[in-house]
Parts: sequence; C-alpha cells; structure tokens
Amino acid sequence: MKILISQTTVITVNDNFEILTDADVVVEGQNIVYVGPTKEWQEKFTTIIDGRGKLVAPGFVNSHSHAAMSLLRSYADDVPLMYWLEKRIWPMEARLKREDVYWGTMLALAEMIKGGTTTFADMYFFMDQVAEAVEEAGIRAVLCRGMVGVGAEADAALEESEQFVKHWQGRGDGRISTMLGPHAPYTCPPDYLKKVLALQEKLNVPLHIHLSETIDEVKTIRSQYGVTPVQLLNNLGFFTRPVLAAHCVHLTDEDMEIMCENNVHVAHNPGSNLKLGSGIAPLPELVDKGITVGLGTDGAASNNNLDMLEEMRLAALLHKGVNLDPTAITAQQALTMATRMGAKAVFLEDVGAITPGQKADLIVINLQRPHLVPQHDLVAHLVYAAQPSDIELVMVNGKILCENGKLTTLDEEKILFQAQQRAELLLKEEEN
Amino acid sequence: MKILISQTTVITVNDNFEILTDADVVVEGQNIVYVGPTKEWQEKFTTIIDGRGKLVAPGFVNSHSHAAMSLLRSYADDVPLMYWLEKRIWPMEARLKREDVYWGTMLALAEMIKGGTTTFADMYFFMDQVAEAVEEAGIRAVLCRGMVGVGAEADAALEESEQFVKHWQGRGDGRISTMLGPHAPYTCPPDYLKKVLALQEKLNVPLHIHLSETIDEVKTIRSQYGVTPVQLLNNLGFFTRPVLAAHCVHLTDEDMEIMCENNVHVAHNPGSNLKLGSGIAPLPELVDKGITVGLGTDGAASNNNLDMLEEMRLAALLHKGVNLDPTAITAQQALTMATRMGAKAVFLEDVGAITPGQKADLIVINLQRPHLVPQHDLVAHLVYAAQPSDIELVMVNGKILCENGKLTTLDEEKILFQAQQRAELLLKEEEN
Repeated sequence: MKILISQTTVITVNDNFEILTDADVVVEGQNIVYVGPTKEWQEKFTTIIDGRGKLVAPGFVNSHSHAAMSLLRSYADDVPLMYWLEKRIWPMEARLKREDVYWGTMLALAEMIKGGTTTFADMYFFMDQVAEAVEEAGIRAVLCRGMVGVGAEADAALEESEQFVKHWQGRGDGRISTMLGPHAPYTCPPDYLKKVLALQEKLNVPLHIHLSETIDEVKTIRSQYGVTPVQLLNNLGFFTRPVLAAHCVHLTDEDMEIMCENNVHVAHNPGSNLKLGSGIAPLPELVDKGITVGLGTDGAASNNNLDMLEEMRLAALLHKGVNLDPTAITAQQALTMATRMGAKAVFLEDVGAITPGQKADLIVINLQRPHLVPQHDLVAHLVYAAQPSDIELVMVNGKILCENGKLTTLDEEKILFQAQQRAELLLKEEEN
Repeated sequence: MKILISQTTVITVNDNFEILTDADVVVEGQNIVYVGPTKEWQEKFTTIIDGRGKLVAPGFVNSHSHAAMSLLRSYADDVPLMYWLEKRIWPMEARLKREDVYWGTMLALAEMIKGGTTTFADMYFFMDQVAEAVEEAGIRAVLCRGMVGVGAEADAALEESEQFVKHWQGRGDGRISTMLGPHAPYTCPPDYLKKVLALQEKLNVPLHIHLSETIDEVKTIRSQYGVTPVQLLNNLGFFTRPVLAAHCVHLTDEDMEIMCENNVHVAHNPGSNLKLGSGIAPLPELVDKGITVGLGTDGAASNNNLDMLEEMRLAALLHKGVNLDPTAITAQQALTMATRMGAKAVFLEDVGAITPGQKADLIVINLQRPHLVPQHDLVAHLVYAAQPSDIELVMVNGKILCENGKLTTLDEEKILFQAQQRAELLLKEEEN
C-alpha cells in the first residue's frame, strides 16, 4: 500500500509548525514517508488523492472520552449535576449490557471518524467490547477499564484491568494501547489507589484519572483528607508514574506547581465542563507552565457530540473571553493541543504531526466552502470556522477509514439502527 | 405554489413550545397554512417533501452581523482588540469598494443560507449592494447603514440612511426591512445621536446600535459623560424608540433596569465577544428580567463563521460554566432566542415559529446522523449536537433556497471564486 496525496497544502504541526503549499504527502504501509514539495513521481501508487484546494492536517486526538455513553446522548440535559449523575446517568449505566457498550462505542466511532478523530482515550466498563469495536473500526485508541474503589466490584475491577491490559496492549496492528483507570480521588480511597499503583508497577502502563473536576470534589477531598485532590494523589506517590488527569478545572497554584514538577498530563474538556456547570479550567496558566495538555470531549451525555473541532474552538475562544484577552490561547496552540500535544498527553509519540516517520493518522479538509473562503489564514480556518463535514478523508495507520464522508470500515446504517433500538430498549426497562 | 412536508417531526417554537410527531406542514405562497397531524391530502401540491426521519424547525434569525466582513475572515486573529481594529480591520475596510461589499455579502449569504439562517440583521456601508444581494438570494433581512457621527462622512451617513430606508423598506416581496444604525455611543456623540433621533421620528423605523461591548467603551463614556453608555442613551431619550442593542456585555444592575423598563432588545453575540476578549454578557440576568434577546454572529472577522448553531450552543453552554449552574440557560431558551425571540428582537412578528399564519421561514434537519442518534431529546440535539451540514432544506418566504445542501438561488462556485479573488486584490493593495 503506497498512497500519494498530491499538490496539496499541509499544516504539519511539526517542531516548526510549518504550513507547506504545493506539497505532496506519501504514505507507505502504516507510515508517512514523504512530506515536501510536489514531485514527478516515477513509482507506482495504490491510491492517488488529488489534494488541490484541500488541506492535510494531523488527525485529532480525543484525550478523554467515554465512547459508549453516546447511547445516553440527550437522555438528560440542563439538570443539576448530582441529579444528572444519581437519578439519571448512574441508574441507566447500571442497566447497560455488553452489547449496549459495543453498539454505543460503535456509534461513537462512526461519529469520531467522520469528524476527523484518529485517536481517542477512553475509560469505561465492558472494555473488551470497546476494544473489539476499535479493532474492527481501524481507529487508534488508548483504553482503560474505569475502576471504582468502593463497593462490590472494586477488586474485580483491578483483576479485569490487569486482564484487559495483558490481552489488548499492542493489538490491532499496534493501534490499541492501554492504561489503568482509577476513576477519581473521590471514588477511589487511598488504600485502593495504593493497590492501583502496585498493579501499575507490575504492568508498566500509564494511569488515567478524573481530577479536580468540580468544586464539590475539591471540598469533599479537603474535608476528608485536609488537602486538595492533586495534593492527595501527590502524597500517595501517584505522580511518580505517567498520569493523564482529566478535567483539572479547580486547581490551586500549588496544585499546578505539583503537576508541572511531576509532568502530569491534562485532558482539557471545555464543552463538558461548561455543560455540567463544572467551571472553566485555568488553561492559559497550565500552558504557561509548560504542562502537556490534550483536548477531550468527555462522554456524549455531557457534551452532546464528539466533535473535536468544537472542543478546539472552545479551547481557543473560551479563555479569551474569561480572561478578557484575545491573545489568551491562539489558534496554533489549540490545534497543537488537539493533535500533537494531545498525542503526547495520551502517551503516544508517533502520531500527531504530518512528518516522515510518524504513523499516517491524518485528515484531508475540503476548503471550497463558503465558510472557509477567503483563505487568509488556514490555521484560523481550521480552529475558528471549519465544520466536521468539511473533512473529506480520514486515515489511521495508513488506512482510509472515511472517504467523501462515507465510512469504509463501518456499516453506518446498521450502527444507527442498532444504537437507536438499544436506547429504546433501555428506556423500556427503565419504565418497568 | 403549495408545498407539503409530510410525516415529519416539528419543533414549533410556538407559545407552548410543542414538539409534534407524525405531523404535516403545508406552505402556501409565502405562508405556513397547516401544522398538525398527518392527513390524506386530496389537493395537489407543487412539491412534496418526505419528512420521515427528519425534523422541521424555524429558520434561524441572526440578530447582529456585518455580512460583508466575510471577506476579512481569518485576516486578523488572536491579536489585541485595538490593534485588530486600528491596524488591521479599519484600514482594510477603508479599501473596500462597492463590489467588495456585494461579493462579501454574497459569500455570507451562501454560508448563512446553508447553515439554516433565514433572517439576518445587518449593519455596514454600501448597503445598496447588501440589499441587492438579499433581493437576489431570497433571504430575509433587516438592514441599516452604519453611521459614525465623527469625521467627514457623518452627515452623509444620515442622508444615505434616509435614502436607504425610503428605497428599500418592504422590497423583495416584503423580505427587506430597514433600521437606522448609529454605530455606538463612543463613535456617535450626543449631538449626532439627536440628529439620528430626529430622523427616526421622520422615518419611524427601529434603531440598531452597538452598546457596552467592552470595558474600555464603558470607561471612555464614563470619563466623558459621567454615566454608563446605557444611561447616556437613556438620558438622550434614545430608548423611547424601538432599539436593538448589540453585545451589552458590561452592564450594571441599573443599566439592566433601564433596558427592561424601556423594552430595549438585545443581540447577544457570544462567539464574537469571546474571540475579541470583550467578555461574557450577563445573559441569565437579561433573560430573568424578561428582556427580549436574540443571538448574533457579528462579522466573520471576529467569529470566524456565521454558524447560528454554534452561537446557540455557546449561549446555552457558556453561562452554565461561568455561573457554575447546569440549568443556567436551557436548550429550549437558546433555541427560542435563535428563532422566535430573535425575530422579535429584530422587530419581526411573523417569523420564528412553525405555526399557521407565520411566514414560511423554516429548516429541515436530517436526523440520520451518528451524532443525532439515539433520539431522546430533539431540542437538546439541535442545540448541543447538530451541525450545519445536517440542515438539508432551507425555506424563506415559502421559497426553497437550499435543498440537499445545494443553493438554489445562488451560484456558489462563482461566489467563492469572486470572494477569493477580491480578497487577494485587497491584500495586493495593502502591500502597495
């Protein structure tokens, strides 16, 4: 398999953040092997894509999601957080079966791929079904079994996590990697987190945790332990391991110092944090400190889509308004977080830039749209103006997963039918 | 012309905000004549649209824009506000010719129509060209010549405004209405505003003004006049006339009382206010006071698209996060502001709802999309999850302007070409 994208424009998101015009991109097997001036190629290509009037960019990295929650999209909106969780989401999640998680994930993958997401980091349960969906779909994923350290399933979750890591790490031609996913400091007491750390030492995979998402969480932890959630984890030695911390909305200066010193990665979820009324994370401060930040959608129940263009736009817009500073987060910074830095945040080094040697995870955007004309600044276009439907082609690991808006590996009609049907069945069970 | 949309789902945005399933919508001439249960119709229709699996909703009302600024899209981003205005936007606007405004507006209309906007309120210059574009495109518009009360063109702007109102009011089969557009309190001194009020008395059209957009504006007016911009206008008797005030980001409690008492309408522009670092308007407070609020995109130079789905989503999300309250602005409230209340905000009473007697300004959304499944709550879908490309059909005044994503009244390819070319010419002039 050798693919040429010819005579195109490329936002590389490489070290120099270059924008190349009249450029060719060549993919061989899983890898990008050439990015540079248009050439008269002598060799044969399996596929040639005419890149004129189009833009090639790295695929998006969704650094925090619960894909199967797509089945709960618009099931509960505009309600107080604890009501949302306790009366709506948790009871519904308790009813989810393996098949629900499989089809909910498939629904999410259809949406994510069409919207240019090429990697996602996920935390949920019935993760074998999630990994199977990933294997079939051809997307890249960093998966973990969410572990709650209280209740009957606490120890089983550790056991399942170990089995999951051992079985799935590196599968799907290397597209699947794994993590351990203790849910949050307020659902995993210190003794349980110590067990997680012992398991991490054995398996040597990164940790993915929700951290300082709400004021209530910070208050709870403070009242129980006298410290902030970040300080609590730090005291437990949690940050001596590679950690991806989702949300990080409510942080003290000391928290940020700890995170910086320990190279804690952050998944910033601006849409979900707004929708649940959690607040607005101190993104400019995190960026100023040089902390590695990716962007995430969180689950569709609190978003309500999985559109990384939207998260990128929110990350760039929101902090300008909150800080009364139009330079707060630039388009280039937001795009970097959605791609290359996002990849780093989920501990992948070989995706996120269009440069030789990287895995071929990329998107092709059609610029011939009213909202993308005139073309003064293509980075601004991608961050502030583009729509998912502008993304014509999506490639992961050198394989085309979406072309002209059509999924190549998934049966979209079947997925929509199954997802709708399973959601209706769950509602019927709820009524009984 | 009699059009049937059959067996569909309708979000009416009527008094009771009804959601009808298995419904028919009938349009005759310019008007909606039937909205109710599916029937066996005996009469003949010019067009029958199969509405199964689709959603009919009112078209969007963009209550504040500068359409022709689409030509400056992505021309200057992520820079401080005064630099943006003084070094980038104003010098470029000084170079705009009639043809630039025509093609810039056409570019905006192509985008707006495809994105489901059926009415827009616009303030700019060379407004004859804007009105011509509106007449050709078939969209509905509330137009005014922006007037700056200092400098050489101050009196000419009054004269032009009068001619514009007299010539265009009610044209385009009633689709065009007009306003007077004094730019802002900081660009129109009190003596000039008095002239505007005298002209308003003569012409009897509403006023459209930028108001309390930035902290600097409030400081400037306070230092010059010892009162807030709202109080200044109130003291001049400005609010004894029908007024649409754009932005209203920085308001005191007294300001809001004045606006409430005088029934001042507001155009809330969350995207532009974020992007320029202007701040976040007190939308929940305005809504609580019963003030009529519409949503607007502002110009594409500060947005950078004209996507009303995005503005609606921002209006619903932003204030939840800022106020740490997930119930702050509901999906239903945001949709109402984008449609029916937006129409009222721009002083139109016969558009904004899907109900007999209203003008047929509507959109048809295809729900068979991964991000719109399952369908627990269609209002939440429209506000939190939908994309412009989900909008399959757009109708204004009973005429289909967009079908299956294709514009029927405009030559999109020609518009993109002309807009790109004119933008490049403007850049060349800048270099010389």
